[in-house]
Amino acid sequence: MSELRKDPILDHWVIIAAERGRRPTDFKSDAPPDTSQSCPFCGDNEHMTPPEICAVCGPGREPNTAGWDVRVVPNKFAALAIEGDLQRSGIGLLDKMGGIGAHEVVIETPDHRAVFCELPREHLVKVLDTFVDRVVDLRSDKRFRHIIIFRNYGSAAGASLAHPHSQIIALPIVPKFVSEKLRAAREHYHRKERCIFCDLIEQEMAMPERVVCRNEHFVVLSVFAARFPFEVNIFPLQHQHDFVLMSPEQRQSLADILADILARYRTILDDPAYNLMLQTSPSTLPKPGHPEYWGTIEYDYHWHIELIPRLTKVAGFEWGTGFYINPVSPEQAAGFLREDAEAQGAGDG
Amino acid sequence: MSELRKDPILDHWVIIAAERGRRPTDFKSDAPPDTSQSCPFCGDNEHMTPPEICAVCGPGREPNTAGWDVRVVPNKFAALAIEGDLQRSGIGLLDKMGGIGAHEVVIETPDHRAVFCELPREHLVKVLDTFVDRVVDLRSDKRFRHIIIFRNYGSAAGASLAHPHSQIIALPIVPKFVSEKLRAAREHYHRKERCIFCDLIEQEMAMPERVVCRNEHFVVLSVFAARFPFEVNIFPLQHQHDFVLMSPEQRQSLADILADILARYRTILDDPAYNLMLQTSPSTLPKPGHPEYWGTIEYDYHWHIELIPRLTKVAGFEWGTGFYINPVSPEQAAGFLREDAEAQGAGDG
Repeated sequence: MSELRKDPILDHWVIIAAERGRRPTDFKSDAPPDTSQSCPFCGDNEHMTPPEICAVCGPGREPNTAGWDVRVVPNKFAALAIEGDLQRSGIGLLDKMGGIGAHEVVIETPDHRAVFCELPREHLVKVLDTFVDRVVDLRSDKRFRHIIIFRNYGSAAGASLAHPHSQIIALPIVPKFVSEKLRAAREHYHRKERCIFCDLIEQEMAMPERVVCRNEHFVVLSVFAARFPFEVNIFPLQHQHDFVLMSPEQRQSLADILADILARYRTILDDPAYNLMLQTSPSTLPKPGHPEYWGTIEYDYHWHIELIPRLTKVAGFEWGTGFYINPVSPEQAAGFLREDAEAQGAGDG
Repeated sequence: MSELRKDPILDHWVIIAAERGRRPTDFKSDAPPDTSQSCPFCGDNEHMTPPEICAVCGPGREPNTAGWDVRVVPNKFAALAIEGDLQRSGIGLLDKMGGIGAHEVVIETPDHRAVFCELPREHLVKVLDTFVDRVVDLRSDKRFRHIIIFRNYGSAAGASLAHPHSQIIALPIVPKFVSEKLRAAREHYHRKERCIFCDLIEQEMAMPERVVCRNEHFVVLSVFAARFPFEVNIFPLQHQHDFVLMSPEQRQSLADILADILARYRTILDDPAYNLMLQTSPSTLPKPGHPEYWGTIEYDYHWHIELIPRLTKVAGFEWGTGFYINPVSPEQAAGFLREDAEAQGAGDG
């Protein structure tokens, strides 16, 4: 079983998920994602995955058979185990706990060669609905404090399979990076009684040099202090702390804007590898007095999606300082991402 | 000129160093480091770099000519500029300042094909002496609050040139990641009047499952909460807050242990790409009352070297949470790194 360990100086946690029988030199291979016929995520290969958790499908389908649109299965190589208890323990300065959590795969289509951003809108909405359903279900397990949904596309972004899929991880603690966001949002709210994200969105839309695109419910912003070239965030325009609260109209609107920005990446950045992370409020609210009591979270937090194309390498300076060097200005990036859309529009029209 | 920008939510800084004329698709190329004859770092090619800052060489050599052992030049593509002032400014929630700092390259040998860990010990000591000299010199510029030395080896680690070299960056602020270390060390000291690193080293040496190797002055530890497989830290055994204080004996000892651990990486992990980061105390001590006043730093901080072989990809989960999944347990990693040394020893003997 895996283990969670806390860095005694920096207070962040890591998951030690040692894979049996792996030799030191096994890590060296830089093989591209598997594209063979025997993909476990393809339609008709349902027997190759662990038994499914749920699926979006027509009526009368038997579980683990073909005929689904979206299918959720446990990750075969899960970093965390759903069964067991936390067993918090410490040796002197060192803290650890059992690797308890959930690690699921959302197979977004049975079609291996489908391109996520080119799926029909109604299909993308089914994927978003599945994200919501899984998060709601996982939150009923009181051991889980935070759930993250992410999508790795391309081997440079850490994807090991080419078949379109996302992953969901439920964690027994709120990660440091998320806590910092929650804390900053709470502090701003306590000072101003306003949401810091709403303030930021308003400011950005008033001087639109970093606005990439928008629709009725969402805006895509080129990040002011972007760590990576062409890094963008997608925000709901209306204040909303938790993505499970999205209305059906918002879900359609999100499907549209996701397809839009990913299509821009694909065209303008030549189909780059990317990571997509959905940041929403944590699962459970510890009681008042607990350092993780987010009492005003409904008012102070604002869910969003982070998108990072993986165009540059992270090097010693970044690892050693947490400082990033970004070779493209966010305004220039927004310009490129906007311009080409215009050019495309002109070409198509 | 580049610009420093602060993330309005997470409070970390980034360097926006936009390179002129770079098109979005230029980032896609994944070319290996240059190995042609026209390497600007090679002996006899001194004219291809900006004029040198200093060099370790015999008597009577003219600057920017051949005949040097170690040579320091400004980075031709510097992320920060040495001239100008900080011009701190803000627009609403957004903060920025001018990209002031120093960005230097330490060319570790004129020989393009030399392997760093196979350089003679006396040559490695010259490199370490150069690091110390540059840090002492850069600290005399009161605009610089922190100096980081790092070495990127291999294209997966972000190296763009294969010729052996390290880099030095002087920053006008103490980076968040470093501040967190400094703050944790200070808090531990205020509570216990002991250095947290000394406590940790003592604890690790008492149960040596994570000790990779040691010599008279240094120990290499497999990191308890390692983010990456085979991540190690090198610590001076005696308490020392600043690496410029190393005695001549310590420098020789550090050269030995660096060569040792890097040779182990090379053999056991099949010549992996890696990042090396030297973490020492910040440059200037702001006055008491300043949030960055590190009054007890002589007693509470302990310099060290971080080493990360780049064997795994950083993916959405890591970017979205700051949580890392490490597929090799640190004890197993230490075992591999120790065992092979024994096997080698047996083979050589």
